Amino acid sequence: MIPAPAEAAKNTKNVVVAREALPVPGFRVSAVHAGIRYRERPDLALIAAEDVAVAAGVFTQNQFPAAPVLLCKEHLAARQARAIVINSGIANAGTGQEGLDRARAMASLAAGALGIARESVLVCSTGVIGQQIPLEAVEQAVPKLTEILREEGWDDVARAIMTTDTVPKTASTRLVLDGKTVTITGIAKGAGMIAPNMATLLAFVCTDAKVSGPALEYWTRTGADASFNRITIDGDTSTNDTLLVLAGGGAGNDLIGDPHSEAGERFGEALGAVLLDLAKQVVQDGEGVTKFIEVRVSGAPNTAGARAIAFTIANSPLVKTAFFGQDANWGRIIAAAGRAGVPLQPERVALYFNDVCIFRGGTPVPDAGVEEAASQVFHQKEIVIHLELGSGEAEYRVYTCDLSYDYVKINASYRS
Amino acid sequence: MIPAPAEAAKNTKNVVVAREALPVPGFRVSAVHAGIRYRERPDLALIAAEDVAVAAGVFTQNQFPAAPVLLCKEHLAARQARAIVINSGIANAGTGQEGLDRARAMASLAAGALGIARESVLVCSTGVIGQQIPLEAVEQAVPKLTEILREEGWDDVARAIMTTDTVPKTASTRLVLDGKTVTITGIAKGAGMIAPNMATLLAFVCTDAKVSGPALEYWTRTGADASFNRITIDGDTSTNDTLLVLAGGGAGNDLIGDPHSEAGERFGEALGAVLLDLAKQVVQDGEGVTKFIEVRVSGAPNTAGARAIAFTIANSPLVKTAFFGQDANWGRIIAAAGRAGVPLQPERVALYFNDVCIFRGGTPVPDAGVEEAASQVFHQKEIVIHLELGSGEAEYRVYTCDLSYDYVKINASYRS
Repeated sequence: MIPAPAEAAKNTKNVVVAREALPVPGFRVSAVHAGIRYRERPDLALIAAEDVAVAAGVFTQNQFPAAPVLLCKEHLAARQARAIVINSGIANAGTGQEGLDRARAMASLAAGALGIARESVLVCSTGVIGQQIPLEAVEQAVPKLTEILREEGWDDVARAIMTTDTVPKTASTRLVLDGKTVTITGIAKGAGMIAPNMATLLAFVCTDAKVSGPALEYWTRTGADASFNRITIDGDTSTNDTLLVLAGGGAGNDLIGDPHSEAGERFGEALGAVLLDLAKQVVQDGEGVTKFIEVRVSGAPNTAGARAIAFTIANSPLVKTAFFGQDANWGRIIAAAGRAGVPLQPERVALYFNDVCIFRGGTPVPDAGVEEAASQVFHQKEIVIHLELGSGEAEYRVYTCDLSYDYVKINASYRS
Repeated sequence: MIPAPAEAAKNTKNVVVAREALPVPGFRVSAVHAGIRYRERPDLALIAAEDVAVAAGVFTQNQFPAAPVLLCKEHLAARQARAIVINSGIANAGTGQEGLDRARAMASLAAGALGIARESVLVCSTGVIGQQIPLEAVEQAVPKLTEILREEGWDDVARAIMTTDTVPKTASTRLVLDGKTVTITGIAKGAGMIAPNMATLLAFVCTDAKVSGPALEYWTRTGADASFNRITIDGDTSTNDTLLVLAGGGAGNDLIGDPHSEAGERFGEALGAVLLDLAKQVVQDGEGVTKFIEVRVSGAPNTAGARAIAFTIANSPLVKTAFFGQDANWGRIIAAAGRAGVPLQPERVALYFNDVCIFRGGTPVPDAGVEEAASQVFHQKEIVIHLELGSGEAEYRVYTCDLSYDYVKINASYRS
């Protein structure tokens, strides 16, 4: 894990995100050890809203979605929720109809304890694929889980949802809307190095902002596209990936109905900053990760082309092993860019490592000292790779990490 | 490197391919140490046809093609060639106009020594990106290169073109057309583990078959699509990848003008078998490789979908590290298949490890002994992963390998 460069990372000129979990008025949370798979650590968590909250979700595009993903989509049809129950240890994926029945049972158990409707409970799971959730463990743990609900328990929840993560991931920001203080707090679990059967990204964000369902959905999707959809560790995506955002409305601001109103834009920017910070934390906590890499592609004829090139570079095992080897290997980056399926004009392309231009006009920059300067960049913990295509105005950024011995070790030995 | 299962691998029911290089009447070859980059090993090779040969080529789709790739495309316009000059050590990629001039100079030097036109000489390079070819080294070596040309020197050529390969790769077959014996001999260099700056696949095939330019081109493209275009080590493709096929015509068979004539089909099948065998050798010689994996996707609605899923599985770092760990991790394979961008119906999908069905109808097969049987498959050197989608008739096969510590080691430390 790479230590964060600073406790507070400034994501935009307006938003300061703290890497801590501020309590959100109107929400209480808890976590307990239920013994689903892990021993001696919390593995079941609950997030509960005082009243019905406006809710939005973004889910894995995987064609084998886990049972809780199917359940969440169903329960979110009305864009409302009152609680989220989350377990780690077992993913409830590849479990068929029985798995879906058990996900429903988890919702029912939590709903019963909270005295609310089953359809207002969302369920998320992360862990090994192909095993069924032991419902008796959930049943026994739920009374305790509801009993200890409190506003300050976010760190416990962030820990309970971890699998191969080494640190809990939390982020909060506050903004003032219509003279009222609004809090946005999020937690996430990464995927270690998008680890084997634990290959899941989960993120939960709660806010007391008063916002309509469509506006919340708009900013949730926009924020996810600019954060979790821009990180890649190994290109693998999970059967369980889920982002849920709940807005309780207790802050008392005027209802945000139009996402593009002034308040809507400010709320969206703040939510986006929290999501981006959580996404970066996920990459930084990849097990075995030694480098945090921003891949920026600019000057593209369109965004799709910039995105394709950025992801091809970010997912290239040759590029990622070069980062691990601290080798300013521009040839691999150029070669990866060239196979992204996007037409390029090599003589117009320039490649920068931070501010050092190493390749331009089809050949390496011949200036003395460039190789040495590039090498120094590659010995830093955080590196910006900037490829300027010289063929347009579109731009895309992706966040990734290196590929180390430990990635192979963790993923080769996990289940064995 | 995995030893080949047998010296002679049967690729189709009609074609037996030997892993040796039979001389091809009408072609002479040679290799020398020119000192381009490597010390004390041959690094410059020549393949020369007695007369003008019909020629076809398939090249990298990379948007940063190396200088020799540009030159070959230019010289192949007439579908003819008389010689191929090949160097290892420097790729002549990322070298701009100067690199193209030097590739032309290499063709001129060989043409001068052979007394033929410069345009009839093809040039291939493999090695580090971004450095210029030292022409004086080539100039000094060419007289010796032409002087020692002989029919039996194919093994020397196969060694001279190696970079991170651990063994030379050769394959030959013979067939009788119109009562005449036709020989097809090919050599290839792999890419170690598609190694860093050495990331090039080169293959050269010569035959004495009498075949028209269009027919040769047809079977070369078809053969490449069914062989080199189906292997993947890490998804990275090079700036220099080149396959050249030369047909001298000395065997005396009736001219194959129509690729779909009976003789045309038989020739195409034989050429395809040689190419497929060379392609498999490239995968088997990946440095650090411990497993050879065939990924077969069947029951797809169309070939494009089958291909997308097969390559997504084959390139998944999670799947590849599971192979290395000898872990029958079906969850990772299902998850990779599910993110290929192809719509699937999970309940119709079945997954087999060799003949062991481990997943069917959306859940793991519950039979006792299945996990143990699957685990035994994963301890073998060669494994077939077969995913039946149950949604159509289309099928695609891809050949790949595992991802080991050594892959990271080799690629992290190469240039450092």
